[in-house]
Amino acid sequence: MSAAFRDLLETFDNPHPAREYEIETICPEFTSVCPKTGQPDFGTLTILYSPGAKCVELKSLKLYLQQYRNHGAFYEDVTNLILDDLVAVTEPRWMELKADFTPRGGLSTSVRVDYISHDGQSGD
Amino acid sequence: MSAAFRDLLETFDNPHPAREYEIETICPEFTSVCPKTGQPDFGTLTILYSPGAKCVELKSLKLYLQQYRNHGAFYEDVTNLILDDLVAVTEPRWMELKADFTPRGGLSTSVRVDYISHDGQSGD
Amino acid sequence: MSAAFRDLLETFDNPHPAREYEIETICPEFTSVCPKTGQPDFGTLTILYSPGAKCVELKSLKLYLQQYRNHGAFYEDVTNLILDDLVAVTEPRWMELKADFTPRGGLSTSVRVDYISHDGQSGD
Amino acid sequence: MSAAFRDLLETFDNPHPAREYEIETICPEFTSVCPKTGQPDFGTLTILYSPGAKCVELKSLKLYLQQYRNHGAFYEDVTNLILDDLVAVTEPRWMELKADFTPRGGLSTSVRVDYISHDGQSGD
Amino acid sequence: MSAAFRDLLETFDNPHPAREYEIETICPEFTSVCPKTGQPDFGTLTILYSPGAKCVELKSLKLYLQQYRNHGAFYEDVTNLILDDLVAVTEPRWMELKADFTPRGGLSTSVRVDYISHDGQSGD
Amino acid sequence: MSAAFRDLLETFDNPHPAREYEIETICPEFTSVCPKTGQPDFGTLTILYSPGAKCVELKSLKLYLQQYRNHGAFYEDVTNLILDDLVAVTEPRWMELKADFTPRGGLSTSVRVDYISHDGQSGD
Amino acid sequence: MSAAFRDLLETFDNPHPAREYEIETICPEFTSVCPKTGQPDFGTLTILYSPGAKCVELKSLKLYLQQYRNHGAFYEDVTNLILDDLVAVTEPRWMELKADFTPRGGLSTSVRVDYISHDGQSGD
Amino acid sequence: MSAAFRDLLETFDNPHPAREYEIETICPEFTSVCPKTGQPDFGTLTILYSPGAKCVELKSLKLYLQQYRNHGAFYEDVTNLILDDLVAVTEPRWMELKADFTPRGGLSTSVRVDYISHDGQSGD
Amino acid sequence: MSAAFRDLLETFDNPHPAREYEIETICPEFTSVCPKTGQPDFGTLTILYSPGAKCVELKSLKLYLQQYRNHGAFYEDVTNLILDDLVAVTEPRWMELKADFTPRGGLSTSVRVDYISHDGQSGD
Amino acid sequence: MSAAFRDLLETFDNPHPAREYEIETICPEFTSVCPKTGQPDFGTLTILYSPGAKCVELKSLKLYLQQYRNHGAFYEDVTNLILDDLVAVTEPRWMELKADFTPRGGLSTSVRVDYISHDGQSGD
Repeated sequence: MSAAFRDLLETFDNPHPAREYEIETICPEFTSVCPKTGQPDFGTLTILYSPGAKCVELKSLKLYLQQYRNHGAFYEDVTNLILDDLVAVTEPRWMELKADFTPRGGLSTSVRVDYISHDGQSGD
Repeated sequence: MSAAFRDLLETFDNPHPAREYEIETICPEFTSVCPKTGQPDFGTLTILYSPGAKCVELKSLKLYLQQYRNHGAFYEDVTNLILDDLVAVTEPRWMELKADFTPRGGLSTSVRVDYISHDGQSGD
Repeated sequence: MSAAFRDLLETFDNPHPAREYEIETICPEFTSVCPKTGQPDFGTLTILYSPGAKCVELKSLKLYLQQYRNHGAFYEDVTNLILDDLVAVTEPRWMELKADFTPRGGLSTSVRVDYISHDGQSGD
Repeated sequence: MSAAFRDLLETFDNPHPAREYEIETICPEFTSVCPKTGQPDFGTLTILYSPGAKCVELKSLKLYLQQYRNHGAFYEDVTNLILDDLVAVTEPRWMELKADFTPRGGLSTSVRVDYISHDGQSGD
Repeated sequence: MSAAFRDLLETFDNPHPAREYEIETICPEFTSVCPKTGQPDFGTLTILYSPGAKCVELKSLKLYLQQYRNHGAFYEDVTNLILDDLVAVTEPRWMELKADFTPRGGLSTSVRVDYISHDGQSGD
Repeated sequence: MSAAFRDLLETFDNPHPAREYEIETICPEFTSVCPKTGQPDFGTLTILYSPGAKCVELKSLKLYLQQYRNHGAFYEDVTNLILDDLVAVTEPRWMELKADFTPRGGLSTSVRVDYISHDGQSGD
Repeated sequence: MSAAFRDLLETFDNPHPAREYEIETICPEFTSVCPKTGQPDFGTLTILYSPGAKCVELKSLKLYLQQYRNHGAFYEDVTNLILDDLVAVTEPRWMELKADFTPRGGLSTSVRVDYISHDGQSGD
Repeated sequence: MSAAFRDLLETFDNPHPAREYEIETICPEFTSVCPKTGQPDFGTLTILYSPGAKCVELKSLKLYLQQYRNHGAFYEDVTNLILDDLVAVTEPRWMELKADFTPRGGLSTSVRVDYISHDGQSGD
Repeated sequence: MSAAFRDLLETFDNPHPAREYEIETICPEFTSVCPKTGQPDFGTLTILYSPGAKCVELKSLKLYLQQYRNHGAFYEDVTNLILDDLVAVTEPRWMELKADFTPRGGLSTSVRVDYISHDGQSGD
Repeated sequence: MSAAFRDLLETFDNPHPAREYEIETICPEFTSVCPKTGQPDFGTLTILYSPGAKCVELKSLKLYLQQYRNHGAFYEDVTNLILDDLVAVTEPRWMELKADFTPRGGLSTSVRVDYISHDGQSGD
């Protein structure tokens, strides 16, 4: 499933690949469906990364995230899967994904996942 | 007493056990009873942990916390007991519990308790 | 049921009965139980009134509101009942009760109820 | 189309029909689809009304609003249609619906619609 | 008692007595003592008035309010007494006094008192 | 000049012309050029109106406002001109335009302009 | 004294004199000197007016307000004098001036002064 | 002097002495008297500590702090003295006291004092 | 292209070159044009640096940033280019540039770029 | 010039010289004059230090800072000079001075300067 969505992500060449710097993108309109109850979940995704050879293209990111709109996914699982997809297509120096979900049953939950490239330079 | 409540906590398998990542759950509707005065106390619990083999299931967490509704417990004690219960059932890499209680007599109190697994990997 | 709780409300003589003025009391720690699901509800009550011959005594108000802690009550009903009880014991010039409940299922609800004395002066 | 969704709205008898009072429900997780671009829209609905003979039941309201999740609807139209549906099933003394949509193209838009019953008492 | 404190209030001539305008003074450091428990109360006083022939001098106002520091006084009573003193010495067109007290027992209370001169011009 | 820009504004038929309701659009990215100094000005426009037969189309509104990017215009003048253009193309029941400009020389300025149709129904 | 400062205020012709609209200018950097203690006072002036034939020019307003930097003036007096000067040079339909001074001795004070033209149209 | 107040502080046994954890108590209603001017000072004390064998009892802490109400004490001195008293009776692993005083003469001052036990375990 | 803009940046001698200290300048009115869509982008630039021999002159910085007003530039590229220009003319000990862009398509993006001089003292 | 102002700063003996602790004083009413334009600048100074043998006396600090009211000084220069003066008279363990100036030309600037005593104990 995640593989199919991953193909929607497009990248462009990092215009300054020699410098280690950071890009943060905040996506406050993420919504998926709880696989147990069928009820929609809502949350804000915050993607922070240091680009290697490639940056993620924002329009394709938006389209990619919209695929989860009618897709059943647990909080902990979907956050890990999205990180995996973004790392696979951009091969960053490092990346952090934080997902803050709105309250359910009086409880609100966030999941934070990190990736660090082995050579500390790029994700190859 | 705590043993009886602990049985209400359910877990599910961590979907990404090989990765060290964080889950934060905020519970703004915690209430217990002061054992000295019999008056209700109110507070917000913030649970932050890195899951090992298991994650805590949120509906069972809600039910577990509701058991304290008519239960007498001092701030310092109840915070430690809840951490002990959560660590016992999830065996996390590490866990922090912060309890912020509403003001009483013009004073407001928070208690913050940490657990770190000996092998730094999982709570076994 | 409400009649039984009402007896807990105590009053004292308005020290300045000739002047029309306002008293507002905010109770952020109101909790009751949903009669359908058995789950606890949480909310903030705001009582605004112009006293007639009597003012409500705050310690008794606190004790009265605590009676709803394990009592099943719908939002719309409990707000009306508390207003009725407060009007009955204080006979105010006018009174407004606003109950702001915390979100459930992504929806948050408030109920606002008013009382105005027929002679516009006191609740007798 | 709206007629089909309307059937999902359930009501219960106003427990205090003789008193004119207010109920406000805030729905921060409304989402629909732009009929022109196919892109999702997000917004917060605020429903404020004075109940006549009936109140809207919150679980059915949640289910009703979720029907717009994959439904194409312009801001101005959908706000009017939801008000029409809510008025039809609850017959309120009066009702106001405010829809605050998140920014698109740097512009953010709100639509506010009112209904007042002809006899100023109930919606019959 | 109030008479004794009142003598501490000094005034100066309104520099623009022909114009109806407003002066607001906020006093966030008011403290008195609960006559029942002997415990200190804390609050913020907001004085809003349209001066007649005289304005209240601020240093004397500060000194006057400090007299309540070790003085037993109920919320409702002290607010009315301070308004009476301020009206007596400044004879304003109108005056409003709002006292916002910090929470006690989880409840916070405000008292708002108004005065309007009979001729709508000055307090004589 | 204003006439040329006005042609960029497009409208669509009000889907509920019989009901008097409100539409608010906030444009936080307005920028023009000070005709005296040639320096850019920045501000937020807030358009609030009750539509008559027509609503303003948002993409055309965005394009219209972008025409001021390199156009010299005083605060007071540009606010009036934009209101005139919007009234001319939408013929609303009423419309208010508020322009909040960012500080210059330590002073920040807002201009608020209103239009009300003579027949109180539509702008014809 | 005020007369000398008034000459610094410049105006320009209201570009839309037939329409009644509002201009608000906020000046957060006003400072004068207390005539009794010689200590500096600091405050924020908010000028709100409906222009008649003329608008106040902002650079001259800034220069005018800077004249109070080393000038002794009581709160109540200086607020009235600045309103008088602004009304004299702009002859507005109406004008309001609010001066919010920073705390002294734990007390913070605001003064609000209004002017309304006799013919309700312009200040002549 | 401080010795006399110190006797008012009561403690209870730390219910979980083997675990290093934190307790924070915020006291927003601290007031003392300036020894030079005789004027009252107001501030917020924040006590953060890791308990050793004992915890401070909150009612006794409130009573202890009230002793400063009519006591002359400089900011820097009183903050150090209160820390000394709290350390002496609780013998914590470590403790920090922060005192934030309200503005005087346009300046606001905070004092932060730390204590660390020599053995890093408890205050003995 | 960037070279042409760089000539607009002026500097002055650091008045305290021997001390390592920080200067932060926030520019909330940055605007450029998207090279793909031709639509304007808006953002806030935050420049933080420790000056070496020279400081950037603020008026020239304002003029330099205004050159991007009608210039097509991607987020990631423009942030790197501005840092390069500022480093070239000021030769700082170190410098950080953060660019926070307003939301587009529901996504908001920031770019943060750092420079550290090789000798850790100045940028020569 | 700075030497002359420095004489206004008075100190008192640190009441607890053996303990390393912190004092923070915030001065939101600093104003000086731009030496190039003659226009007033406004800012907030935040002084944070660990006292050695002496503390700065607050009334003298206020008087000292007022000397800059009509004194021409660049941001970078004045921040360094005030730090030098405060270090010279108090000989602190360490001191940090942060100056946050209000926006000019759409840009707002802060300067942060540090001092650390060579022996890490006091400023002698």
